[in-house]
Amino acid sequence: MNATIPISDRFRVKTPQLDMPPRILLGPGPANVDPRVLSAISVPPVGHLDPTYLKVMDEIQDLLRYAWQTENEMTLAVAGTGTAAMEATLANVAEPDDVVLIGVKGYFGNRLVDMAGRYGAKVCKMTKTWGDAFTLEEIKAGIETHKPKILALVHAETSTGVRQPLEGVAELCQQHDCLLLVDTVTSLGGVPLHIDEWGIDLAYSCSQKGLGSPPGASPFTMSSRAVEKLQQRPNPVPNWYLDMSLLAKYWGTERVYHHTAPINMNYALREALRIVAEEGLIERWQRHQRNAELLWEGLAELKIECHVDREIRLPTLTTVRIPDGVDGKAVSKKLLNEYNIEIAGGLGELGGKVWRIGLMGYNSRPENVILLLNALKKVLY
Amino acid sequence: MNATIPISDRFRVKTPQLDMPPRILLGPGPANVDPRVLSAISVPPVGHLDPTYLKVMDEIQDLLRYAWQTENEMTLAVAGTGTAAMEATLANVAEPDDVVLIGVKGYFGNRLVDMAGRYGAKVCKMTKTWGDAFTLEEIKAGIETHKPKILALVHAETSTGVRQPLEGVAELCQQHDCLLLVDTVTSLGGVPLHIDEWGIDLAYSCSQKGLGSPPGASPFTMSSRAVEKLQQRPNPVPNWYLDMSLLAKYWGTERVYHHTAPINMNYALREALRIVAEEGLIERWQRHQRNAELLWEGLAELKIECHVDREIRLPTLTTVRIPDGVDGKAVSKKLLNEYNIEIAGGLGELGGKVWRIGLMGYNSRPENVILLLNALKKVLY
Repeated sequence: MNATIPISDRFRVKTPQLDMPPRILLGPGPANVDPRVLSAISVPPVGHLDPTYLKVMDEIQDLLRYAWQTENEMTLAVAGTGTAAMEATLANVAEPDDVVLIGVKGYFGNRLVDMAGRYGAKVCKMTKTWGDAFTLEEIKAGIETHKPKILALVHAETSTGVRQPLEGVAELCQQHDCLLLVDTVTSLGGVPLHIDEWGIDLAYSCSQKGLGSPPGASPFTMSSRAVEKLQQRPNPVPNWYLDMSLLAKYWGTERVYHHTAPINMNYALREALRIVAEEGLIERWQRHQRNAELLWEGLAELKIECHVDREIRLPTLTTVRIPDGVDGKAVSKKLLNEYNIEIAGGLGELGGKVWRIGLMGYNSRPENVILLLNALKKVLY
Repeated sequence: MNATIPISDRFRVKTPQLDMPPRILLGPGPANVDPRVLSAISVPPVGHLDPTYLKVMDEIQDLLRYAWQTENEMTLAVAGTGTAAMEATLANVAEPDDVVLIGVKGYFGNRLVDMAGRYGAKVCKMTKTWGDAFTLEEIKAGIETHKPKILALVHAETSTGVRQPLEGVAELCQQHDCLLLVDTVTSLGGVPLHIDEWGIDLAYSCSQKGLGSPPGASPFTMSSRAVEKLQQRPNPVPNWYLDMSLLAKYWGTERVYHHTAPINMNYALREALRIVAEEGLIERWQRHQRNAELLWEGLAELKIECHVDREIRLPTLTTVRIPDGVDGKAVSKKLLNEYNIEIAGGLGELGGKVWRIGLMGYNSRPENVILLLNALKKVLY
């Protein structure tokens, strides 16, 4: 021991055993997770190159392919939260001076703009009011004007609750030799989504919303077209941790060490994906839709308006307008402190104007709808 | 529902309930974790802006400051595994054309070289045989020759088992207006380490070795000198997820949303750090030293040589030379399959030449030493 350097106990703080409140997470995520998933996350870890763990990785890849309806070989879980998977899409294919066209109609569109700029892309924006979606004509015009190498759209905008229709977009992209990059953070596992049928080249998501796992391991997929662009880069990907040319060697057959995987997070993700496969995608999407409609009916009865038109409204996340004269923050604080219910306020343009209510994954259940509606009634009236 | 697109069940694979073998993880990490930590990781998550979670973050920051012996305000857990925290140090302070001098004496020195290059730094290398450490004179000569903005050294080289002495290095760095960046992946929580006393400006580590938590949330700290360099950057950090100017607003008093934190990983890290504080740093370092010496004595009795000189040998990770005529891979495979014991082979220059044996965190216990020595004896003779 180095006896000459004394140890400081200044930050040797005494903390009690972890004792968290039993929250009912009805905001934009994380959502509560199935007890089966919590049980899986606490299984003692094995090594990240253990043959039994490599099998877990393979299973996660297959089950993700099912959840995303894709045959993409490069389908895996990024070792970070959804934002890391988001950055992984841009970091790998947005090269310096590539034109990247981004549809901005909420907070996460803006985040894509910020990120793409950091990778040296020439960023162009299409914008739309927060609460709207782009029409196919608008997207066509954007592509024709800017001639992007990559078009990025947010399928499920977590800040507005809007579902961006994607039918027909891939055809436009392919005509213009452009990759289609899609944010599916709030759609995967809860909203109809067909990666291959819709011709999506790059997509990312998170574990803690529609899939019902804790945050920390995040779905990522890229098509062979996107892989080709990656392979043709003249220089290494300017992000080591998220470099898919290296990650492909760990998740693929070579099994070359890249990073020490978040073993327990992936145990959890595997269990969450197993539950998706057991339930079935159609059944799961229908459940999310059914419970969302129950919520919307109940809100109407309370004379609370939804912010987004029904045709493009996400079943996973609903933005509702805070009634005139009501202090939105005070209401959500009361819901949290008196009933352990978490809902969230608006972001950006919608700050102070809406609440965001999530019914996602394990939490998309009628009992949660009834509870929330009645707690809201108590707090409001 | 979109009735026109059929659902493919090709990847709807049937998987059994997770059933992992009870491994004893005596390789370079992950190590086994205390049951208290596994219990904490399975506590149901709350929201990432919940007041009760913000308190968990504060506690993690304080306990990390204790474990690292630092008062750095910017001390936090990166939402990824150790490699992400490694990249965070370079991404934030290594600006294009900055000279970064890296001491390479093993695999992770090379990884720093690769990463720094991706951020546009002018990378210079000092090299040393894998198994050696740099002398203060060599470091001085390197600084005087290359005049770097950043000097990066690996305190505990996980590929070689070498402890790099750091006394006196900071004075050299400060004389030459250079930041000192140190890899403490295999030292934090197991090997004497004094961030402030040693004048370290940037350090990163992992959760799954000396701290005894599963991989997935990774310690990071930076001094006010390093923060100053970050603040003076003319352009944004070219990595959004790891941008400390954004992360400071989430971990600091502003509490601005940045990413959905890996809540459960941080529950686990908090519990692991609580255990460190309960045990006390001196006691913990002594325990690691004591058990490593037990291992070294036992290996000597088996006529197995350690690769690294005693004075610079890490107590957390020992590289031992594979005896002549022994198939190293076959031995580690047998240990795994017959006794559930994981040890690892060498990386890079030491591939096929050494085994790597870890006694880290919860696993640094005499019973593990006895078990490993006797299992090795059975497999070898």
